Amino acid sequence: MKAHVHITLKNGVLDPQGKAISNSLTSLGFDGVEGVRQGKFIELDLADSDAEVAKARVSKMCEKLLANTVIENYTVEISES
Amino acid sequence: MKAHVHITLKNGVLDPQGKAISNSLTSLGFDGVEGVRQGKFIELDLADSDAEVAKARVSKMCEKLLANTVIENYTVEISES
Repeated sequence: MKAHVHITLKNGVLDPQGKAISNSLTSLGFDGVEGVRQGKFIELDLADSDAEVAKARVSKMCEKLLANTVIENYTVEISES
Repeated sequence: MKAHVHITLKNGVLDPQGKAISNSLTSLGFDGVEGVRQGKFIELDLADSDAEVAKARVSKMCEKLLANTVIENYTVEISES
């Protein structure tokens, strides 16, 4: 079973990395880029066979290790195979 | 218009960051984690109004700046609003 986790900065939290990407895109000639936010994407292979259980466990992993919940949001998607 | 870009390491490319996450999860007591791969997730706000055009432009941004296509794959999804 696979879990896909997206970790993104909360609204209002400054994102200097996104700002740097935005500036670089503009200086490369890509105009019309109004905003860039960079987050993390984590793929986990799990031994669990129950999707509900897996989702709960991965949420716990996010709370404990993967995300800094003071400044970051996370979403968990579970998929078969 | 929004673009969501996922940048992941190609199969076979070592992922020390994913390995570190995997080890940390195990030492925190989360068993059954068989593999972890970490990638990047980039959200772009674009001025474009045509989804096809936007997708082509974002793919070009990936080739030129966002992804290292020697070791990374990227996927682009375009969504309204």
